Formats: sequence, structure tokens, C-alpha cells
Amino acid sequence: MIRLPFDLDDPVLALAAWSRLAEPGDQDAVRLVRGVGPVEALRWLVTQRKPDSAQSGGGLERAMKRWSGRLEGLDPRRELKVLHRLGGRFITPDCPAWPAGFEDLGLAAPLSLWVLGGAEAPLEQLWGRSVAVVGARACTHYGETVTFSLVSGLVAAGTTVVSGGAFGIDAAAHRAALAAGGRTVAVMAGGVDRLYPAAHEDLLKEVAASGAVISEVPPGSAPRRERFLERNRLMAAMTAATLVVEAGWRSGAHRTASTAAELLRPVGAVPGPVTSAASAGCHRLIREGIATLVGDAAQLIELSAAISQAPEPMTACPSGPLDGLSLPERRVFDALPLRGAASVSQLVKSSGLDVSQVLAALSRLERSTRAANTGGLWRRHQPQAKLAHR
Amino acid sequence: MIRLPFDLDDPVLALAAWSRLAEPGDQDAVRLVRGVGPVEALRWLVTQRKPDSAQSGGGLERAMKRWSGRLEGLDPRRELKVLHRLGGRFITPDCPAWPAGFEDLGLAAPLSLWVLGGAEAPLEQLWGRSVAVVGARACTHYGETVTFSLVSGLVAAGTTVVSGGAFGIDAAAHRAALAAGGRTVAVMAGGVDRLYPAAHEDLLKEVAASGAVISEVPPGSAPRRERFLERNRLMAAMTAATLVVEAGWRSGAHRTASTAAELLRPVGAVPGPVTSAASAGCHRLIREGIATLVGDAAQLIELSAAISQAPEPMTACPSGPLDGLSLPERRVFDALPLRGAASVSQLVKSSGLDVSQVLAALSRLERSTRAANTGGLWRRHQPQAKLAHR
Repeated sequence: MIRLPFDLDDPVLALAAWSRLAEPGDQDAVRLVRGVGPVEALRWLVTQRKPDSAQSGGGLERAMKRWSGRLEGLDPRRELKVLHRLGGRFITPDCPAWPAGFEDLGLAAPLSLWVLGGAEAPLEQLWGRSVAVVGARACTHYGETVTFSLVSGLVAAGTTVVSGGAFGIDAAAHRAALAAGGRTVAVMAGGVDRLYPAAHEDLLKEVAASGAVISEVPPGSAPRRERFLERNRLMAAMTAATLVVEAGWRSGAHRTASTAAELLRPVGAVPGPVTSAASAGCHRLIREGIATLVGDAAQLIELSAAISQAPEPMTACPSGPLDGLSLPERRVFDALPLRGAASVSQLVKSSGLDVSQVLAALSRLERSTRAANTGGLWRRHQPQAKLAHR
Repeated sequence: MIRLPFDLDDPVLALAAWSRLAEPGDQDAVRLVRGVGPVEALRWLVTQRKPDSAQSGGGLERAMKRWSGRLEGLDPRRELKVLHRLGGRFITPDCPAWPAGFEDLGLAAPLSLWVLGGAEAPLEQLWGRSVAVVGARACTHYGETVTFSLVSGLVAAGTTVVSGGAFGIDAAAHRAALAAGGRTVAVMAGGVDRLYPAAHEDLLKEVAASGAVISEVPPGSAPRRERFLERNRLMAAMTAATLVVEAGWRSGAHRTASTAAELLRPVGAVPGPVTSAASAGCHRLIREGIATLVGDAAQLIELSAAISQAPEPMTACPSGPLDGLSLPERRVFDALPLRGAASVSQLVKSSGLDVSQVLAALSRLERSTRAANTGGLWRRHQPQAKLAHR
């Protein structure tokens, strides 16, 4: 057993620790942390508790090996201190400031966020009405001009502009929002203490001052390639729509747009000359039916309004408690006590399923509001409490 | 009764006469000429035969008044002489050279065509594999460049380029096709003896020399506004696909594209800078779902090939002779003799319907291959003869 220097019972410290232990998009981590709670999950790792091999199915065991390599020297108090020195906040899914759109990511959702900003407006207002504006680093003068025009329209409509802080369209989007006196949010692939690219340090500080700079990885983390790719899903999920202004044939922006489309968010793309390689990705998105052609700010606002006009998903109102459940979900639901709560270990025993199956089922039961989780203990859901629309 | 100086029994002279009597798109004329044949229809008009008012329903009577105003001085031999002096040909729906696509226009189809050209290739080959390339008169340098590039690709694929001979994109399309050594067809809104615009006289003579210049109206006719609008339907119908390169928000090109879409022809539109008014109509067509975004020649060829891959419509194979017929259609079908043929007048008597109803029903019966018309006499269709795919 490895000895860690901080209070293992503190759920916030535990979540901050998980942000270092697991890479963005690590679904095993989300399943375990959601299943048993961050504190218990960390204890499992620290005590090297091996899930019964007959029960775990192997995936969890491999993941624990992966995470264990990062236990050495782990101390989330250090990263939190860096964040607080910068005036930042660490937020978790329980906070009112948590972006509601992350819920749609399911097991690909982040477990926590490291945030600079939120001084001028509450964070939940900041991303409550927002559009992601993304595009090529190697953009053209045309792309910058159109970005300025469209972003000015978004700002005039009171919409927050979310982008990635990179060269090209991203920077133009942030700058246009700031120039129009609007709010903008930059989503980083590395820690918020090392604003990247360095040439945009001043710009990103301005972004944080009026809006926010956020990251899923703790201070000190380098912006690595995989983290850029995973970062894109956050922009797609936290906003009401995604606009691609210019993009090459293969590009991060194309990926962000595809993710947004998978999350059923409206996607827009700005056309350009067919002779411009910087517009090829936009034309591709339009031809593939992923994006709607957007030519002006009014069309962009119409697009981002589309989501709020869509009917509310009815997952909050199952007509019977077991309707539409898979067999493992039914077994886990049946195993939940009628009064009180049960740990995952108890549910493994009483359901006869392995740990991975129980965690997966609990995750789905929680998402369909049939089960709820408090401090790692699971109980049947009290329907009255959650039927209100969010 | 008006005395006309030419042989009223000549069906070709009669069709040439109808081309002057009725404006393009006059469905009453098509219904009558198809119904009783061009000779008989002309006789009705010359003898001022009034359809029995209880039978005609009024529409035909009004149309005959309209046409009668043009009987004075009518002599199609004069227009045909002008055409022949120019080396042209007058073609009718019976000719093998008749564009097959006109059939889809139904009662909006032309009754005849005045053609210059066809010297280098048989006309039916000329439009057998063709794409309409249309666009703004006030085009940009970008639009011209893209037209050249896309048309070169079409020519390389052996496709004829059909356009309207106007300034801007039309002229660029013809020039690009000629420059690439390809075939091109210009569809005129006025007579083929007065090539319009005058500034394009040399260009249009070149078009006629290697391809064709065609018109629905006889020599001597001025290119009037309504004729431009009706001309657009011919381009849409005779080609396998329509491409709009640049177009303003409201434009003839938009109308051609909409007509093509209504005829179930694939429509393409080239995007451009959103800052360019000359691309606004293209972006509108893409946003409205009328056009597919086309960025290069390969995508255009893919688009124009789409129609030949579509399944053949099954109207040629009705499962029973009366399936899906309206009541008047059944009555007219029943009135058709089991052997031999009947005139429209006979059918009016035996069906108890008025002339307009009989003509409308015959037109629909003919389109669904249940009735056939030879020299103005109608007979039941012999299924074996027409079941082959065209």
C-alpha cells in the first residue's frame, strides 16, 4: 500500500487526484468514480484492492494498473494551491456552475474542471448560452474577417463564444468577442497555469478576466496531442451549437463538429471559395450533411436556438421503473435495497454480476434517474425529486 | 373564318404555326395539340370552332381567343425559310433528335424546337449526356475561374455543357467548353436568327458550329422577360443535372435550379465567400436543401451520374389497366374503342365529359402509357410495345 500525504477522505481532494491519475476521456475512471464515489475509488487504488478476477472482467484491473503508475508523489493540494494562487476555482459535477451539457457525454464526461475566471459573470451564466466557434490555425484573411462579423453578431445576441485559444480562427473568435465587449471562454488542452500557445498568454488572460479559461487536466499538465483531441469534445458538449469557420480537409475542427453532431448539437460551417484549401473542411461538413451552411450572424443564431426548441428528452419520466432496461440493469435495480442504500461490493454480491457489469448498469440506471448515488452508496431513486425539467 | 396562305394539312407547318400562336409554357395549347393533333387543333382555331360551352369548361374557349389574335398574317413557311437559310432544323417530339428529358415537363413541355447546329454530332448525342451550367450575369472573377475549371472537367468526361448564352457565368460556361474542345448548347429566349445578346453573336455562332443553339420560339421572336423564365425550364429538363456557379439571392439561376429539383434532376451549387453577393443565391440553394454543394469537377460528375443510377420509374408497368385512375380518366379509358381509334370529339360524346376534361384525362392516360395518340386519333395502348426501358 502506497502512503499519500493528503486526506484521502476529502471528496474534493479525491476528485482533484483523479484528474491527475486518469487522462481525459478515460471511461474506466468515470465508471469507477461514479460507481463507488471518488474517495472509495481512490482507496481501492491506494490499497491496490484487486477486483475479484471472476467479477471484474479484466478491464478495471488493467485500468488500475494504468492509474497506479501515477500514485507516486500524488498530491492534489499542490495543484489546487497553484490554481488558487491564480485566482481560479476547482469545480465538480455537484457544483451549480458545472456545465449542464457535459451530461450528454455519458462516460466520456469530465470528472472535474480547473477554471480561471468567472469574476464578471457566474460560470453557469457564462456557458448557459454559448456557441463554440472553431477553425483552422492556418486561416486566411477571409476566415478572420468572417469570424469577426459572425462573433459580433453572437455577442450582440448575448451569446458566449467558446473556443480553444489556438492560432488562427480560435484567436480571432476570442479577440472578436472581447472587441465587441462580449464574453468568451477558452478551453485548454493543458493546465490553466501554462497558457498555450505562449504567444497568446496576454489574450488568454484577457479571456479569463471577462470570461473564463478552463481545463480538464490539473495545473502543470502539458498540452499533449491526445489532450487536444479530447479537449474538442468538451467544447462540443458544453455549447448549444458549434460553428466551423475555416478548416482543412482533415482537422481538429472537423472532429469537434462531428462530436457535436453525435451529441445532437446543431453544427454550422461557413463556406468559402472552392479554390481555398482552408474552406475544404467546411465544404466537406456541409456535403456530408454534418453541418448546415451558415452565411451570416442571423443564420448562426437561428442555428444555436434550434436546440432550445427541441422537445425535452423524456428520460426523466420513465413510465414504469423497469421499462426498457437490459437484463443486467434489471438485476442491479432489483438488488438495490427498497430502503436505504448499498455499496457496489454489496450489489456485486447480491446481483451475481461482476464489478464492471454492476458499475456499467449503475451508470445507466443513474442516467435514466432510476438510481442515485450519495458518497459511493447507491439507492433507488425517489422519482418526485427529479421530475422537474432542468 | 380566316384564310391562311399555307397548307393546313401539313403537320410540320401546323406545329411551326403553333410555335408562333402559343407562348412557351402555354398548357392549353399543349393539351389541345396533343389531344387532337396539331393539324386538327389549327383547324379548330381557323374555323373558330367553339367548343360546346357545356363541354369546354371555359378554359379552352379563353385560350382560343388568345391564339386567334395571332392568326392574322400567320405563315410558318416564312420562319422555316429563315431557319433553313441559316442551316437550321425544325424538330418535333416525333424526331429521334427530340430531347428525351422534355417528357418530364408534362403539359409544360415545348411542342417543337428551332435548332441551329448539330453538324458535328447528332443532336440526340449532344443532349444525351449533358449538364446545365448557369449563373449570374453579374459574376465575379472567382465565378469565371471556377466555371472554367468545372466545365473543363465536364468536357473531359464527355459531357455537353448547356447554358443560356447570357453575359457572366453562361458565357464563361460556353467559352470554357469551346476552349476545352467540348460540345456546348445555348438555349435562347428569342429566335435563333437574332442571337442575343448581340455582343455574343460570334460566341453563339461558334456554339452552333460545334454544338447547337436552340429555341422554342420561331425566328423573328424577341427575347422577352417571360420567355427568359420559360427558357430556364428547357435547360433544367433537357439535362441530367443543373449546376449554379454564382447567383444573386433572387435570380433566374435560382429558378432554373428549383425547376430542375421539381423535375427530380440533381442540382449542384458552388459555394463562395459569404461576403460575396454573387454567391448568396448558391448558399441559399444549399441551405434550402435544393442543391448539393459542389466544389470540384469530380463532385459535379458524381452528381450528374446520380440520375442514371436512380431506379427507372415504374409507370410503364401498371398492374391493372384501371389501377389508380380518377373517375374522368376511367370514363375516357372506357370510351376508347377496344379496336381502332377515336377522335376527341367522339370521346367527348361517348364519355359524357367536356372537351377540357377529355383532353386532360387523355394527357394523363398517355403519360401513364394507357392510351396512345396517332395523328390526333386515340387508341388503347398496346402494353407490349412500350414496356422496354427507353
